[in-house]
Amino acid sequence: MGRTSDAKERLIQSGMALIHAGGYAQAGVQDICLRAGVRKGSFYHFFASKSALALAVVERFRQFSDQFLDQALANDLPAVERLIRLFHMAAVLQEEFQRESGFVKGCPFGNLALEMSGHDEPLRHALVEIFTALRQRVATVLDEAGSSQATLQAEAVVNLFEGAILLAKTHNDPQIIRRMGVIVPELAR
Amino acid sequence: MGRTSDAKERLIQSGMALIHAGGYAQAGVQDICLRAGVRKGSFYHFFASKSALALAVVERFRQFSDQFLDQALANDLPAVERLIRLFHMAAVLQEEFQRESGFVKGCPFGNLALEMSGHDEPLRHALVEIFTALRQRVATVLDEAGSSQATLQAEAVVNLFEGAILLAKTHNDPQIIRRMGVIVPELAR
Repeated sequence: MGRTSDAKERLIQSGMALIHAGGYAQAGVQDICLRAGVRKGSFYHFFASKSALALAVVERFRQFSDQFLDQALANDLPAVERLIRLFHMAAVLQEEFQRESGFVKGCPFGNLALEMSGHDEPLRHALVEIFTALRQRVATVLDEAGSSQATLQAEAVVNLFEGAILLAKTHNDPQIIRRMGVIVPELAR
Repeated sequence: MGRTSDAKERLIQSGMALIHAGGYAQAGVQDICLRAGVRKGSFYHFFASKSALALAVVERFRQFSDQFLDQALANDLPAVERLIRLFHMAAVLQEEFQRESGFVKGCPFGNLALEMSGHDEPLRHALVEIFTALRQRVATVLDEAGSSQATLQAEAVVNLFEGAILLAKTHNDPQIIRRMGVIVPELAR
């Protein structure tokens, strides 16, 4: 029964892969089930809708992202260098995606935010929470760096980060994210 | 025959509205035709595919965007203040969208870039051109402002701009874009 009992998990994994690669609309329930090896009837046993699965997918990406931030912002480096490391690590991650699939896949949160914010309020709220938590973590680092206006500057760092990943995806060039590591100290004065 | 002869134009206008409001995938050819008052058969007389219409839509948004940039970056203000005006004007535009529809619709180029970059190369190339032209315009302004590394800083301003619009759409709050007007001088030193 192992195959049955982990069906929900396989649906989440399948949803993560397909939604990150091609967006929400492109990822049909049928494709998600096919990749997961789960019958379509079972999908609705676990999830009320594709939107409900997307929420579970976002939650799982958030766990990954929290670990990523723990590493990037760890206090083994001076505060500003942690922010530079955040951009460098994001560039490395997008380089890996590019090697695997030929394309920079971008930030799963940013991708879903632009695709879904106008028509899925629960998803939008989940993404607002994630970006707010990121901003707060960056603000803590900026406080430590002695920045003059940490709240506003943290917002700028998050905007720069998401914008750099957006442009990296458009140009299919992760170096754009890496170059912003040179700029981020300007936002920490 | 006026109604027939402007069918192509109405399809483009309808595509602009629907793609900007809900994204590429959500905008079905049928909905685009319905809104335009054009029969579905005629759609394929004017456009080989939805992707071809999207290219025409992007080209039209580009014309709008060029005028917007002409105004924002006009040399009636010192260079750095023009960049601040760019952020302010973008905030005002998103406030208008929000008043009309309840939602910040975001940047049509950024939206399409994140939704389509992985699976529509002609569209991705059109967006790369648009972002490259924006970066060059910003670099010219930064040169005039006496910035120390105009090329890199222009890239940062474009990233910050697109990121701020992304976060404004997620939070449904155009003030995020306006606040970045305070930050942009930090990127022009």
